Amino acid sequence: MATPESEILDVESIRDDFPILDRDIGGKQLVYLDNAATSQTPEQVVDAITEYYYETNANIHRGLHQLSQEASVAYEDAHDRLAEFIGASGGREEMVFVRNTTEAENLIAYAWGLNELGPGDEVVMTEMEHHSSLVTWQQIAERTGAEVRYIRVDEEGHLDMDHAAELITDDTQMVSALHVSNTLGTINPVGELADLAHDHDAYIFVDGAQAVPTMPVDVEAIDADFYAFSGHKMVGPTGIGGLYGKKHLLEEMDPFMYGGGMIRKVEFEETTWHDLPWKYEAGTPAICEGIAMAKAADYLDDIGMERIERHENALAQYTIEQLSTFDDIDILGPSAGEQRGGLVSFTLDTVHPHDISEILNDYSVAIRAGDHCTQPLHDKLGKTASARASFYIYNTREEIDALVEALDAARDLFE
Amino acid sequence: MATPESEILDVESIRDDFPILDRDIGGKQLVYLDNAATSQTPEQVVDAITEYYYETNANIHRGLHQLSQEASVAYEDAHDRLAEFIGASGGREEMVFVRNTTEAENLIAYAWGLNELGPGDEVVMTEMEHHSSLVTWQQIAERTGAEVRYIRVDEEGHLDMDHAAELITDDTQMVSALHVSNTLGTINPVGELADLAHDHDAYIFVDGAQAVPTMPVDVEAIDADFYAFSGHKMVGPTGIGGLYGKKHLLEEMDPFMYGGGMIRKVEFEETTWHDLPWKYEAGTPAICEGIAMAKAADYLDDIGMERIERHENALAQYTIEQLSTFDDIDILGPSAGEQRGGLVSFTLDTVHPHDISEILNDYSVAIRAGDHCTQPLHDKLGKTASARASFYIYNTREEIDALVEALDAARDLFE
Repeated sequence: MATPESEILDVESIRDDFPILDRDIGGKQLVYLDNAATSQTPEQVVDAITEYYYETNANIHRGLHQLSQEASVAYEDAHDRLAEFIGASGGREEMVFVRNTTEAENLIAYAWGLNELGPGDEVVMTEMEHHSSLVTWQQIAERTGAEVRYIRVDEEGHLDMDHAAELITDDTQMVSALHVSNTLGTINPVGELADLAHDHDAYIFVDGAQAVPTMPVDVEAIDADFYAFSGHKMVGPTGIGGLYGKKHLLEEMDPFMYGGGMIRKVEFEETTWHDLPWKYEAGTPAICEGIAMAKAADYLDDIGMERIERHENALAQYTIEQLSTFDDIDILGPSAGEQRGGLVSFTLDTVHPHDISEILNDYSVAIRAGDHCTQPLHDKLGKTASARASFYIYNTREEIDALVEALDAARDLFE
Repeated sequence: MATPESEILDVESIRDDFPILDRDIGGKQLVYLDNAATSQTPEQVVDAITEYYYETNANIHRGLHQLSQEASVAYEDAHDRLAEFIGASGGREEMVFVRNTTEAENLIAYAWGLNELGPGDEVVMTEMEHHSSLVTWQQIAERTGAEVRYIRVDEEGHLDMDHAAELITDDTQMVSALHVSNTLGTINPVGELADLAHDHDAYIFVDGAQAVPTMPVDVEAIDADFYAFSGHKMVGPTGIGGLYGKKHLLEEMDPFMYGGGMIRKVEFEETTWHDLPWKYEAGTPAICEGIAMAKAADYLDDIGMERIERHENALAQYTIEQLSTFDDIDILGPSAGEQRGGLVSFTLDTVHPHDISEILNDYSVAIRAGDHCTQPLHDKLGKTASARASFYIYNTREEIDALVEALDAARDLFE
C-alpha cells in the first residue's frame, strides 16, 4: 500500500491557494482531474500578475526609465530562475522563453532542422510522441528530404530500447522524445536515449511538458541538448514556456523569428544578432507571463518537487488500484506498482471516452477524452480515443473515489 | 488651437482605472510617456485575467467538461471580438492570435514567403520599417533568393509615393508597410499602397502595432491582405496579438508552426490541417491573454476610437508646439498641424537621447531613447538615436509640461 497522499503533501492547505477548486459545477464542487492538459493557478501566481500590471509594467531591454529597468530585471531574472528549476547551470543564456512546448519544438525544427537536415539524414522519435514533435519533424523532414523513424512502444507502454539502439545510427541527426508520456504516463529513459544519440553525434530534444510540473528535472544529468516545458502545466500562466538549450548549441544556431530585441545591428543590407537568450526572443515578449512563471517555480519548490513526484505517483497507483477492480476497464501504460507520471488513461468496453467525459461532467468530475494529441499511438493501440484522469498537487483520494463513482453511473447509463 | 484633450476624453476618470499611474518614482508621481513601447493596463483587463484563473481556467478545443467548454467559448469569441475591432467581417476565421506583431510578420514570411518567393521576386518595404518586418523579410529574401526594395522617406517623414509607384512592379510579390510609424508618427497611406500592390498582383502586409491602439482601423476599407497588431500596446496583456488575413489567403497558405490544436488527422506518415484560424495556432495558446485582449478592445470601444484618435493628435500637436519654441530641438516626422499618431520623437543638440531619458527619469518622466527598432531610418536621418515621448488615453497636457520642464533641466545640466 502506497503512502496516502495526505502524508506526502498538505493538500488541504494547498487547496486554499486555488480559488477555482471551490467552483460549483451543476450544484457539486468541481473535481478537476484534467491537469495534464492544464494545471490550475494559485493566488501567489495571480497576485504576481496583478502586481506586475499595477506596479512595474513597461517594455524591456531598451528602456532607461525606472519601470523599464524594473521590468527588465524581473524578466531577465525569471530566465535564471527557470534555468535553475530544471538544473541548467548556465542560467539565462541557456533558457529561452517561448509560448509553449510546441513553439520550442518548432524553434529547433526551423532554426536547426531546416538548415542542417538533408536527404540521408534521419530524425528518430517514439511511437508515443505528442503531435507537437510528431507533426513538426514530419513536416520539416518532408521539406528537407530527411526521414523520420519511430521507436516502438511495447504492450506495457515502454519504449523498446533494443529498437532504439537499432534505429539510432550515424544517419540520425536528431532524437526527439517525451520525458513523460501524456497518454501512457510512462517515464522514458531519456538519459539512455541521450547517450545513444550522442554515441552517434546526434542531438536530443526532450519534451518535458509532463515532467517539469511533476518531478525533479535535471537537464544536465540527462545530458539533454534541448529540453522544453510549458508554464500553464506547472501552475504558471498561459502563453509562456521554456526552452533549455546547451549554450554552445544556442550560440551556433541561427535565430528562428526575426524582429526587435533579437538584433544587435540592423542595416538595410544585413543584420547581426543579440546575445543569448534574446537572440531567440523577437519582438516584445510575454513579459508578465515570464515573471509569473518564475513565481510558479517558487511555488512548486516551496512544496518540493520530490514530494510532488511521490504524491503524483501515489494518486496514479490508487487510481489504477481502483479501476483494476472492473473487468470492463482497460488501463493504458505501465502496470500497477511501476513509478509513473500522475495520470491514468483508460477505456471502458461499453462507453465511448467522449461519453464518459460528458457523463462525468454531470458529476462535476473534469477529465479529458480524446486522443490527447497522440493519434498515431492510439491507432497502434487499436483505440480511437481514451479517457484520461490526471492529477496535481491539490488532488485527493476522495476525488478519485468520486471519479470511480461517476464511472459506475456512466456504465449503468449505457447498459 | 486644437481642442484641449480634457474636452475630448474624460482623462481624470480614465486615470482612475490605471493604478500604476499613481506610482511614485523618486518622490514624484510617474509621468508615463512611453506608450508606443507598451501601454498600461486598466483594472478592467486585470480583473478579466484574475476572473479567468479563478473561475474558468482550462485547456480549450478538446475538452468536454464544463470549464474547458467555457474557456473554449470565451477564447473563440475573443477572436470574433478582435476581428470586429479592426473591421474584419469574416470574424474568427480571419483572426489568428499570435504573441505580438513580430510573430505575425514571421508567420507570413515563413508560411507564405518561404514557399512562394524565389529569385526574381521582390519584397517592397519602406525606409521607416520596424525591425520586425525589415529583418524578417531581409532574412527570408536571402533564403529564397528574392530581393528587398525600400520606398524612400522624404525630409518631412512622408513616404515618397512616386517612388512607391516606381518600385512596386510585376516582380513585387509582397509589400510590407507600417500603418503608423513608431518613430516619425507619420500615418502612411496604406490604402494607396494596397491598391498599388494589387494592381501588380502583389499582397500587402500592414503593421498596425501603432495604429490599432490609437485610431479606428478598418482593414477592409484599406483592403489589406494581412494586418497585425499587439495586445500590450492597446491596454491588453503582454504575450498576445492579432493577425488578420483575408480568409481565402489563410485557407490557401500552409501553416507556420506545427503541433496539437492545429491538425485534423495525424498519422505516422501524414497530417491534415484544422479549420481557420486554429490551423495557425499550434499548441496550447495564450488562452487567458486572448480573452483579456478582447476585454481591452471593449475598454477602448467604450471610450471611442475616434475620440482616442483626436486626443492622441491633440497631445502630439501640443508637444510639437511646446518643443518648437526651442532652437536646439529637432523634431522628427511631419510638421505641426498635420494629423499624426500620438508620439513625438526628437533630438537635443547638446544632450544624447540616452542622457535625456536618464535625466528625465530623475524627474519621474518615462520616455524612450534609442533607435526604436528603426536603425536604418535613424542612419538615413543622420542620427544614432532619438528621444520619443508617446501618449495614450490617460495622458494630459500637464504631463507634457512636466516633460518640457525636465528637458530644460537636462539642457542646463549639459551646458
